[in-house]
Amino acid sequence: MKSDIEIAQACPMRHIREIAREVGVEERYLEQYGNYKAKIDDKLLQEKKGPDGKLILVTAITPTPAGEGKTTTTVGLADGLRKLGKKSVVALREPSLGPVFGLKGGAAGGGYAQVVPMEDINLHFTGDFHAIGAANNLLAAMLDNHIQQGNALGIDVKKITWKRCVDMNDRQLRNIVDGLGGRAQGVPREDGFDITVASEIMAVLCLATSITDLKARLGRMVVGYTYEDKPVTANDLKAAGAMAALLKDAIKPNLVQTLEGTPALIHGGPFANIAHGCNSIMATRAALKLGDYAVTEAGFGADLGAEKFLDIKCRMADLQPSAVVVVATVRALKHHGGVAKADLGKEDLAALERGLPNLLRHVENITTVFRLPCVVAINRFPLDTEAELALIADRCRELGVHVALSEVWAKGGEGGRALAEEVVRLCEQPNQFQQAYPLDCSIEEKLRAIVTKIYRGKDVVLTPNAQKQARQLTEQGFGGYPICMAKTQYSFSDNQALLGAPEDFTVTVRNLKVSAGAGFIVALTGDILTMPGLPKVPAAEKIDVDETGKITGLF
Amino acid sequence: MKSDIEIAQACPMRHIREIAREVGVEERYLEQYGNYKAKIDDKLLQEKKGPDGKLILVTAITPTPAGEGKTTTTVGLADGLRKLGKKSVVALREPSLGPVFGLKGGAAGGGYAQVVPMEDINLHFTGDFHAIGAANNLLAAMLDNHIQQGNALGIDVKKITWKRCVDMNDRQLRNIVDGLGGRAQGVPREDGFDITVASEIMAVLCLATSITDLKARLGRMVVGYTYEDKPVTANDLKAAGAMAALLKDAIKPNLVQTLEGTPALIHGGPFANIAHGCNSIMATRAALKLGDYAVTEAGFGADLGAEKFLDIKCRMADLQPSAVVVVATVRALKHHGGVAKADLGKEDLAALERGLPNLLRHVENITTVFRLPCVVAINRFPLDTEAELALIADRCRELGVHVALSEVWAKGGEGGRALAEEVVRLCEQPNQFQQAYPLDCSIEEKLRAIVTKIYRGKDVVLTPNAQKQARQLTEQGFGGYPICMAKTQYSFSDNQALLGAPEDFTVTVRNLKVSAGAGFIVALTGDILTMPGLPKVPAAEKIDVDETGKITGLF
Repeated sequence: MKSDIEIAQACPMRHIREIAREVGVEERYLEQYGNYKAKIDDKLLQEKKGPDGKLILVTAITPTPAGEGKTTTTVGLADGLRKLGKKSVVALREPSLGPVFGLKGGAAGGGYAQVVPMEDINLHFTGDFHAIGAANNLLAAMLDNHIQQGNALGIDVKKITWKRCVDMNDRQLRNIVDGLGGRAQGVPREDGFDITVASEIMAVLCLATSITDLKARLGRMVVGYTYEDKPVTANDLKAAGAMAALLKDAIKPNLVQTLEGTPALIHGGPFANIAHGCNSIMATRAALKLGDYAVTEAGFGADLGAEKFLDIKCRMADLQPSAVVVVATVRALKHHGGVAKADLGKEDLAALERGLPNLLRHVENITTVFRLPCVVAINRFPLDTEAELALIADRCRELGVHVALSEVWAKGGEGGRALAEEVVRLCEQPNQFQQAYPLDCSIEEKLRAIVTKIYRGKDVVLTPNAQKQARQLTEQGFGGYPICMAKTQYSFSDNQALLGAPEDFTVTVRNLKVSAGAGFIVALTGDILTMPGLPKVPAAEKIDVDETGKITGLF
Repeated sequence: MKSDIEIAQACPMRHIREIAREVGVEERYLEQYGNYKAKIDDKLLQEKKGPDGKLILVTAITPTPAGEGKTTTTVGLADGLRKLGKKSVVALREPSLGPVFGLKGGAAGGGYAQVVPMEDINLHFTGDFHAIGAANNLLAAMLDNHIQQGNALGIDVKKITWKRCVDMNDRQLRNIVDGLGGRAQGVPREDGFDITVASEIMAVLCLATSITDLKARLGRMVVGYTYEDKPVTANDLKAAGAMAALLKDAIKPNLVQTLEGTPALIHGGPFANIAHGCNSIMATRAALKLGDYAVTEAGFGADLGAEKFLDIKCRMADLQPSAVVVVATVRALKHHGGVAKADLGKEDLAALERGLPNLLRHVENITTVFRLPCVVAINRFPLDTEAELALIADRCRELGVHVALSEVWAKGGEGGRALAEEVVRLCEQPNQFQQAYPLDCSIEEKLRAIVTKIYRGKDVVLTPNAQKQARQLTEQGFGGYPICMAKTQYSFSDNQALLGAPEDFTVTVRNLKVSAGAGFIVALTGDILTMPGLPKVPAAEKIDVDETGKITGLF
């Protein structure tokens, strides 16, 4: 069996000018990065006339170690729509270098449903993440320099919240003491690094709608507090202009193609726990301008990713989705039914049946809470049996849930025809899209809405600390922001051991902090790791490049 | 008076394909980064036929706070050669983000002798430095992960020499303790960050002649020592392949243009103290392939920059220079003559006369030690008086030293005609280029040759520590490497207060360490700062970008 990178490298790519031309992007809007990557000038969004396409969100059941293939399905659905003669465009997140060198290998789809050039997309791509890292670290350097040079703003070094970042899995940097070495070498303090995708600047870039909006958001970001507990912002440090200058190209969406030549906009990639986990608003808007069908994805399962996509991103960008795809696999549902990872290759209809409620709850949330048409995509894996596939399809149909088998991993767009047909049909239906909560209720009410309506928990509990933070944030004027939940992705609850469709649980919010630039309040239900580590044998050990520049070992 | 960025932004650039076509680079060798930047495929070096051009090195007197304008002169000379109808190409170093946001502003020439697009060149350019930083930090993460996961190689955490890096002036990171927070968070140890340009990978990239050579050099880099004092290399950590994969595009030279449309290859930028301070060998070779005259520069003054260019880079790459330009300014020579910075604007012929020996010693080194033809370029500044300019020219001529007035800052290539004519004439002369020392003598003998022949000190003194290190390095097989001197750039001596042409001094070497990937031994005469800090008012505070992406505040 060919590996992903072998399939990708065997694919003859078309020149990016040609891909752009097909969707009506004139050359003057293109900035080429080599022959197969380009940035699209944001002026296109203002200047291109015509109605927007239909927006399709691809989300998934609760993630398991078995994998769901959300990106693969997203890419394959867009290719499948092309097979039906529809003008589709796909909008995805950019991969981070950290996981590429850690456990995960590449993150650009899989099998015959990939975006290419996969090596470039997985490595530096067009440099967006490096630009975000540089802007993040410029702000950190200006902050510590301000303190070193006299601290006119009166920043309390014990209340600094801004961290440096690096696009690498590097646990050694999680907790550090810096500024050591004497008077001329900074101010000693506890500090730490995040991975670049966890930087608030990543979320800011993905939610910004123009350079002016970007600069305003950057300027509002809180980096710490004074001795009198007043927030200190990037604007106070006069850093927003230089940061925006560093991001002037990073803000432009990147155009590449799928293996089948479908245009793909790949742009931004914020965490899906402490941030909202979707590609940039500008990329999604560009996809809607360029395609009759814009297919995009959200991070983790539908409880986190789809909820944030619909409650945060769609609200901020005034987007109206037409349909939602919930990806499920036989393997992952069996895992929710209690099967250990080693046994997932064996047929087990009983376990599958026990796992199905997880899928059905996500579907019901989409259709009843958000009132959007929804279809289940069963992403076929090689060891799935016909009986297992039939069981899922039968149970869905019995309950009136739309369902389609997706074989895009093995067959590309051809394997996505059935799903594409179902999606086209759903897009024709009118829908009464609504968010899960209004903005003008209290922070606690918003939290309760998410926990009871989406997670189906009994209630939300705020620790005394979180209650105090909720009061402070409301006093500081942040009470009208939407909520960005940071909880485990492995369960509807805040306990990652509760698989399937747990009931009768409460969710405890321990910390509330504002991402003032992004424009949301992050609710933390536990410790969220914002700097991963490398495994015992990092994927990096297998990655190589030959004299001609050909890369091997990405997968 | 217009600022550099205003001049640069007013210049209508030509499409990079056109610039490339003029020097015979076919489109298949080009990877565009937008319309005005491109990477050149390294295959061009193998495939392009025809004789190489003449190599011209631009170096300078001992640097002063007054500035010399070496890059400006390099660019203006290439433009001046074009005015004479010569096919010239310029090869320069890439600027680092750190100084851009710190004190210095831009570093892409000045006035009417600049390379463009100056904003892009000064910010991320084509991402080379970010790629170097990522490779550097991947190696660091793999190193600490190896220790965390059991330390099979027996690495002594007190003997780790590999540092992380960031392309930022950030003194807070000079001295840190990392790996804090408990068992799962790494191993606590003293550590620190360098600025990216100080990474050995920067030197490696600049000295590599192919991807295969790059990978071999990366693999040889020493990251620390075992408990038994055995060197641990990147190869031992299985990191070379992934690092080379990260650098597969960064190794390709970048093509841009001067304000007058002369092709400019801008690639790499290692420190000029702990490293060799020149642009990449691949860029210089490409410039020689593409131009009849390839004009390049070296860091700091001729004692450091030119010496390393000639003794390290030319030796490794088998390059034969045809002429050397030594840049001097009235202001800088008056500074060497004892004038304070505030008074440099006033005519002072006596001080100028006192400062001249600095210039003449550099010239003599070039002509007698290295046996290369040499011309002094007097880089004219607005406040220079005619009497001052005449004094330098007269003294040079009296001593048989070639000299030309350069007015490229104010007039572009037209102001570089006189210098260009002189350079063309010198290039016609045969020369007996030789290095300052052979490789097959001892480390101490090489150090002595540099100190006595180039710096004109009485002798070199090695501390007992350095003597021991010299013995160890020789035993480890590094005795045949060239020397990379890390000393102050502000004096011929190792005491930065000794301006002009000091005599009767000794130079003390305190530390010797091998850069096994770069292939040289770094000799440290004192503490060299490898992580700068930001000034009281960082240049970043003035940098901004408007809604159209236009940047202001770079200078």
